[in-house]
Amino acid sequence: MGTKNNESQLSAGVTRSDRQMADGRVIRYYDTAGQSRTAHDQREREEQPGIGELRLDPLVNEWVAMASHRQGRIFLPPKELCPLCPTRDGLLSEIPESDYEVAVFDNRFPSLRPPSNSWQLPNLAGLETPIVDAAGKCEVICYTAEHAVAFKDLSLARIRTLLEAWRDRTRELSKLDFIEQVFIFENRGEEIGVTLFHPHGQIYAYSFITPRTEKMLQVASKYYQDHGRALLVDVIAREIHDEVRIIARNEHWIAYVPWAARYPFEIHVAPLRFVADLSELDGEQCDAFPALAKEVMQRLDGVFGIEMAYIAAWHQAPVRQGRRELGLHWQITSVRRQPGKLKYLAGSESAMGAFIMDMKPEQSATQLREVKL
Amino acid sequence: MGTKNNESQLSAGVTRSDRQMADGRVIRYYDTAGQSRTAHDQREREEQPGIGELRLDPLVNEWVAMASHRQGRIFLPPKELCPLCPTRDGLLSEIPESDYEVAVFDNRFPSLRPPSNSWQLPNLAGLETPIVDAAGKCEVICYTAEHAVAFKDLSLARIRTLLEAWRDRTRELSKLDFIEQVFIFENRGEEIGVTLFHPHGQIYAYSFITPRTEKMLQVASKYYQDHGRALLVDVIAREIHDEVRIIARNEHWIAYVPWAARYPFEIHVAPLRFVADLSELDGEQCDAFPALAKEVMQRLDGVFGIEMAYIAAWHQAPVRQGRRELGLHWQITSVRRQPGKLKYLAGSESAMGAFIMDMKPEQSATQLREVKL
Repeated sequence: MGTKNNESQLSAGVTRSDRQMADGRVIRYYDTAGQSRTAHDQREREEQPGIGELRLDPLVNEWVAMASHRQGRIFLPPKELCPLCPTRDGLLSEIPESDYEVAVFDNRFPSLRPPSNSWQLPNLAGLETPIVDAAGKCEVICYTAEHAVAFKDLSLARIRTLLEAWRDRTRELSKLDFIEQVFIFENRGEEIGVTLFHPHGQIYAYSFITPRTEKMLQVASKYYQDHGRALLVDVIAREIHDEVRIIARNEHWIAYVPWAARYPFEIHVAPLRFVADLSELDGEQCDAFPALAKEVMQRLDGVFGIEMAYIAAWHQAPVRQGRRELGLHWQITSVRRQPGKLKYLAGSESAMGAFIMDMKPEQSATQLREVKL
Repeated sequence: MGTKNNESQLSAGVTRSDRQMADGRVIRYYDTAGQSRTAHDQREREEQPGIGELRLDPLVNEWVAMASHRQGRIFLPPKELCPLCPTRDGLLSEIPESDYEVAVFDNRFPSLRPPSNSWQLPNLAGLETPIVDAAGKCEVICYTAEHAVAFKDLSLARIRTLLEAWRDRTRELSKLDFIEQVFIFENRGEEIGVTLFHPHGQIYAYSFITPRTEKMLQVASKYYQDHGRALLVDVIAREIHDEVRIIARNEHWIAYVPWAARYPFEIHVAPLRFVADLSELDGEQCDAFPALAKEVMQRLDGVFGIEMAYIAAWHQAPVRQGRRELGLHWQITSVRRQPGKLKYLAGSESAMGAFIMDMKPEQSATQLREVKL
């Protein structure tokens, strides 16, 4: 699990300093000015929760993680007690330093944990499939020491540092033998159950291929066989050809509302040159990302002039398969239909997986494009 | 769609009377006392909205329905203007009669509509798959003329009538050549976006196999090949063997929290003798259903002593395939974790389809069993 109390040098002038927390977890500071990170975690040592379990849902052959210890997690604390703010007089937060740029620490209430012994995901054997430890890793990524800002308020330099942290976590977690897939995401907004307001994202590194990725992998593999190209390459070619759903682009990235969007506002952001995951982006792609990412998030909040609830999800190819078939893209979905109205996933979506959209993708793309920045 | 102004006799002493509404839609009254339904819909004729479209999401080969005309639908009207209450002085509702038992009418804002011309679902051809009319049928089922009650408050006789209406709709909709799957469900609670409080359910009759059913069909077909039995039969055998997750049963039905539940409260209700859909239930199974259904809904509301938000979804085999592999069951899911806390589908569930449960199924089964009725 990451070397403890160690320093390393990444791309784009970013340094990483690892420090051990009071309860044995690790925090990693990603910095751009060679800061020395020596602050000690002064909190009492707390017992680490046990590992959860994975059970197979036999009706669909999908793993469900059970993490019953998570019920006690912190729920919308007041600003003075924010665990993602830097430590200060009167607040011993998750981050011992008095300031930071980007910090990534092991989740205190992880749904998935590194397994203690030699661990293997059982073969799917329907009703006979045994329960297994919920192996994996959950981390929290803090974007800034400032409590009351959003992704769209970050400087371009900070988004570049954040990208470097995402890339570093993807690379390192991919090396663990019990990890099959690294998922980096941000949930924003009380409407979707966010329990901490401080700008942050999360990482779930799964020990299994998730159901959505499995399905995408099936479809993309068939496509690769038939066409000799990654599906995402041709999806992007259609969006460029149709033009009407594109909301932003630059030399290396494109942002569009997909042809069959499922949410009132759904935006996909993809690099124009295919890569399997964040670690495969080259320097030019990395440097071109911050401006486009910031613009997309500004457009989203600009549609109604309010903070939009969203899920921003990095789809990456799994660690050990599908790496020429599945391409990196960032899927941002918002359930906000109108200022006072949300889209809920009810019977059709939730039980049947059949999505009903109240708005055509071309309509939301127009609204997003028309936002004055 | 359905014969207009017609009477018919169903099982269990239920009669059905069809009447045409002002705008050409049909309302069907399901009665137990031979009532004569002659009331005329006095509203002005209203233009029917156009049909929506189906687009294929090429990344997962799933159909998404686009119904942009639905934005104008009625949102939480005050009780005095409830469109599901019987018509009375000052209120011309969707139901012209001054009283009713169970009534089913064509949805005024349907996501799916009968196609006007000869219609065929296109073959999946990835990015080349054409847009097609969103064929199907959407209906609304009113459980009672009383505005302020819930499913659990219905009399056993009324639940039996409701079951007969569900069976009748399943049978009739299954005969339409553009229908592949009949989905009957109830959304309850503002927390999941319910826009009308009056106790009612809905029917979505799809012109395609929904993604969830497709997946269940794949798994169940493989199981049938390997074992010569329907998967659901063996799933129920495990629940009976394990016993700890059963919350109610009688001679013909069983209710349990499934082994790998995805929601804080999830209950599956299934007949002990396998059937493909509601229309295949025999008289004894039908007569034994109301008591168990009522008990399950009473237990759900009893856990916290509050009205639980839920989705109650009838999984039925598709019309034309999988009828010996896929078995009828009723899946009731609630997002309520604790009185003040909901489970939200955020990054892991929404983007990756990977569910994280905060509670073990055995724990919620115990809570449901311990409710005093």
